[in-house]
Amino acid sequence: MDEQEVGVADDKTKTTGLELRSLIKSGGELEVSLQEVAIPTPGADQVLVRVEATPINPSDLGLLFGAADLTTLKASGSPDRPVLTATVPPSALKALAGRLDQSMPVGNEGAGTVIKAGNAVAAQSLLGKTVAMIGGAMYAQYRLIKASDCLLLPIGTTAAEGASAFINPLTALGMVETMRREGHKALVHTAAASNLGQMLLKICLKDGIDLVAIVRSAQQAKLLREQGAKHVCDSSAADFLEQLTQALSDTGATIAFDAIGGGPLAGQILTCMEAVASRSAKVYSRYGSSVYKQVYIYGSLDPRPIEFTRAAGMCWGAGGWLLFNFLQKIGAADAAKLRQRVASELKTTFASHYSRVVSLPQALALDTIAAYTKRATGEKFLIDPNRG
Amino acid sequence: MDEQEVGVADDKTKTTGLELRSLIKSGGELEVSLQEVAIPTPGADQVLVRVEATPINPSDLGLLFGAADLTTLKASGSPDRPVLTATVPPSALKALAGRLDQSMPVGNEGAGTVIKAGNAVAAQSLLGKTVAMIGGAMYAQYRLIKASDCLLLPIGTTAAEGASAFINPLTALGMVETMRREGHKALVHTAAASNLGQMLLKICLKDGIDLVAIVRSAQQAKLLREQGAKHVCDSSAADFLEQLTQALSDTGATIAFDAIGGGPLAGQILTCMEAVASRSAKVYSRYGSSVYKQVYIYGSLDPRPIEFTRAAGMCWGAGGWLLFNFLQKIGAADAAKLRQRVASELKTTFASHYSRVVSLPQALALDTIAAYTKRATGEKFLIDPNRG
Repeated sequence: MDEQEVGVADDKTKTTGLELRSLIKSGGELEVSLQEVAIPTPGADQVLVRVEATPINPSDLGLLFGAADLTTLKASGSPDRPVLTATVPPSALKALAGRLDQSMPVGNEGAGTVIKAGNAVAAQSLLGKTVAMIGGAMYAQYRLIKASDCLLLPIGTTAAEGASAFINPLTALGMVETMRREGHKALVHTAAASNLGQMLLKICLKDGIDLVAIVRSAQQAKLLREQGAKHVCDSSAADFLEQLTQALSDTGATIAFDAIGGGPLAGQILTCMEAVASRSAKVYSRYGSSVYKQVYIYGSLDPRPIEFTRAAGMCWGAGGWLLFNFLQKIGAADAAKLRQRVASELKTTFASHYSRVVSLPQALALDTIAAYTKRATGEKFLIDPNRG
Repeated sequence: MDEQEVGVADDKTKTTGLELRSLIKSGGELEVSLQEVAIPTPGADQVLVRVEATPINPSDLGLLFGAADLTTLKASGSPDRPVLTATVPPSALKALAGRLDQSMPVGNEGAGTVIKAGNAVAAQSLLGKTVAMIGGAMYAQYRLIKASDCLLLPIGTTAAEGASAFINPLTALGMVETMRREGHKALVHTAAASNLGQMLLKICLKDGIDLVAIVRSAQQAKLLREQGAKHVCDSSAADFLEQLTQALSDTGATIAFDAIGGGPLAGQILTCMEAVASRSAKVYSRYGSSVYKQVYIYGSLDPRPIEFTRAAGMCWGAGGWLLFNFLQKIGAADAAKLRQRVASELKTTFASHYSRVVSLPQALALDTIAAYTKRATGEKFLIDPNRG
């Protein structure tokens, strides 16, 4: 016998499961649908997980819809097997060359119950347990995965509670870790009222780190202040740059993590940091201060080009920040420490909140899509692929 | 006796020397003039240098003219003591706050003869020698400087040959050194037909490093090819981005040093690097390749904001690159090695060419200013402050 299985009767008799797929044809048509795929059999070091909770993160939307024009989105198929189509503008096809005509599974992370396990001890030990996973193809009823890639959730933790155990928690911890490793003592975060932003605030409050939280409305500012944020700047306020400069001066923050990306904001943060650094300069240098200022861009809420004026002096850096690259850089041992902290604080620091739980067909309903593609701060959806 | 002196009779009897000064008044008026200043007496570890050659580098113009509107430049005073005035736009005054109402000496580097020396052995050993210097205030007839800050030039080297021994040579070497230390194997340079660019080309040819040279005209491309450049891209050509992508593919260059700064060029370099990296990607990732791409901006030939589109993926960095910060980062011992290489190759790899040699009053003549503020590639001026 190569494997053992547990679970409801249904899991034992089913030979196929539903999997969400996104296909962009070279002609420029996007097609999103649910496919019946064979349920695979685990190899010795693998387990089969019945996926019970998988979030719709901003980072999933890119793969799900490519660069399709969502105003052209049309629904066909049946309520149980909806098929969505939309047009991808010809100008965007070049950047998508790597995925054209390939049916792509979607869903970065999720959690569920291990219902089959290979013979290896590591696999067997997970049988019947609730685990969290990362690695794509989570918008599916079943996911085959290496036992070593699973995060065993503490007893009493549900799949829904563990569904977002990787991306947001590790991103928030990764920002703090990057700040420390690169020699900064406080940090700036934009779109700071997001689920991720609230998580980062909790870490900073717990660890005693000063956080400058940039939000886009007075309402969001209030929300964060109620959660204990001390340095909140509202980019919709007329005196935003003064607010920001004051907060940077109060905290000494010289590194920022920016989810917005396009437009002037990332550059404004560097410029305000430089204004603070210049105040304490002893001699004039036309090259600006010698205080190193860094902004990492990890999101694309604004798709316009990023603009840097030259008012930040010469001692600055900007760059992309991607969780996967960060984890690779720090190495397996340090990454494991971060994962362990997440597991032990999953119901407190790293708790995620969802606006709605939907089934796979519901995730493809036009009204649901309209809600989760708004990327409204605070709105977050969870898919339960095994919900009928 | 605290000091010894050598030199022409004139130096022994003079008590004051001319020094070029740039003053921006808080009302917004720029005033550039020649001041009579007392010739200082060296302390034990100092020497007094009669400055005989000091170049006008692009890096000097910022301090010399601030952000003054040069179309408002007016000359007054006498031919021997010209006074220039111009208007600084009110919008630019804030960034100049650190220097308002201070008479600033100008001139980053220069060379000359040590005519007085303090008692310390290091100072005494330089007496009568030709030395190169860096540190500002070189647009003057005499410069007091620490002996340890002088670069003793090899016998047979003139002050004119040693006048540019620091900024361009160390900047070009610093780019190659940065490339190596950050793990890249070939590099891109913009404004590559400049004096600095030609020097970098010579280093790359000598050291066997692939250089992608971006120039702004067919004439400059021809000039560099005649000097042995193999990968030259002309940004004025219709197929520039294809030329650049091909050159990046041929060389594997993943780091760039950009003198232009403003506009889309720095971002285009990253995007073309990413296009090359994506070609060899095995699996599709909507975050782009995992090849790290870096662009350092060290100049401001174009004062517009720098624009980065999001087509370079997530694995990229941008930042300011400043020689002084670089030298500080690598430490005194490694910086000394670079300086030693410059001294030993001053007449070959690091030879500078000047279009004209002028006196201090001539440097402030309107027609001279018009010539050196054009920042035309290939035009370079040398001041001899002791020329009558």
